[in-house]
Amino acid sequence: MAYINIPEGLPGIRGLMAFRPETAKHLNELAEVLLRDDHTLSRGERELIATYVSYLNDCFFCQNAHGAIAQHYLQCDIKTLDKLKEDFESKDISEKLKALLSIAASVQQSGKEVTPRQIERARSAGATDKEIHDTVLIAAFFCLCNRYVDGLGTSAPTDRNYYVNRGKMRAEEGYRQFDLYR
Amino acid sequence: MAYINIPEGLPGIRGLMAFRPETAKHLNELAEVLLRDDHTLSRGERELIATYVSYLNDCFFCQNAHGAIAQHYLQCDIKTLDKLKEDFESKDISEKLKALLSIAASVQQSGKEVTPRQIERARSAGATDKEIHDTVLIAAFFCLCNRYVDGLGTSAPTDRNYYVNRGKMRAEEGYRQFDLYR
Repeated sequence: MAYINIPEGLPGIRGLMAFRPETAKHLNELAEVLLRDDHTLSRGERELIATYVSYLNDCFFCQNAHGAIAQHYLQCDIKTLDKLKEDFESKDISEKLKALLSIAASVQQSGKEVTPRQIERARSAGATDKEIHDTVLIAAFFCLCNRYVDGLGTSAPTDRNYYVNRGKMRAEEGYRQFDLYR
Repeated sequence: MAYINIPEGLPGIRGLMAFRPETAKHLNELAEVLLRDDHTLSRGERELIATYVSYLNDCFFCQNAHGAIAQHYLQCDIKTLDKLKEDFESKDISEKLKALLSIAASVQQSGKEVTPRQIERARSAGATDKEIHDTVLIAAFFCLCNRYVDGLGTSAPTDRNYYVNRGKMRAEEGYRQFDLYR
């Protein structure tokens, strides 16, 4: 049971958003811009950065909810995604995405952990200022979301299929105007 | 110099907001709701939570920018605020605020660090669900802001008077519709 009195049947961030729609609105708007708006990074790549940071923060709800959306966009299965989270450097993804995931991992620890060398690696692999900026902000945003979800003691379904089934729906509906109760 | 090409003369988060106004809009809207909207926690108390988390994250820009706003609302000097950050438990603030600052300190580490005992302490001191919720979200939000500001290597004026002079202006104008370049 969560630390505060939230509507039943809404796990993770969903119950918190129903409890406080005034803040939910802006969190969802921010998610929409960062994760779905037109961008040179694909939606799958951006959801992967979100998933990876949530994995590093050990937030079960967020890493599965966004992992399922990443899976949907990247057309891969849970196992592939799990292995990617464990060791992305050895996997078959672009050098640019590896460099950006490495920056995200530093942001998860602290902003001060990001090094000029990591930025240089990303640039050498073709990353633009906007891609670097948005990687840092997506990583920082999920440091917010993970703390919000776990800091208020919310519950999360343990069956990972729950998230897979919702991932497709969220990918189609987006974050901006969805029905919190569905 | 920041890791990305941002307008000159805009330190900390200001240059980043000018670089990416699409995300700045929602960050500022969220700040307005969390830190300024009508609330049973005063604006000074909420800015103090923001300042304390930024201090724990060692983010010079945020802890001084929001420290100056807190100072303005609480009508105290820098020294008093510095001492409060170092050890709030021994200072002359309400038991409720102490309990909420303690929750914020846990959130700064990880959402999972918040304990039922900390929540119980806050409740015993009269904290409502909304106050507990907003404390967690303010703390999580500043874990975002601090990572954003430091993760992109922005500069920050070392003269603390810079922030004091701006604190009053920000307190008067709010976060919603201010001129980024002023």
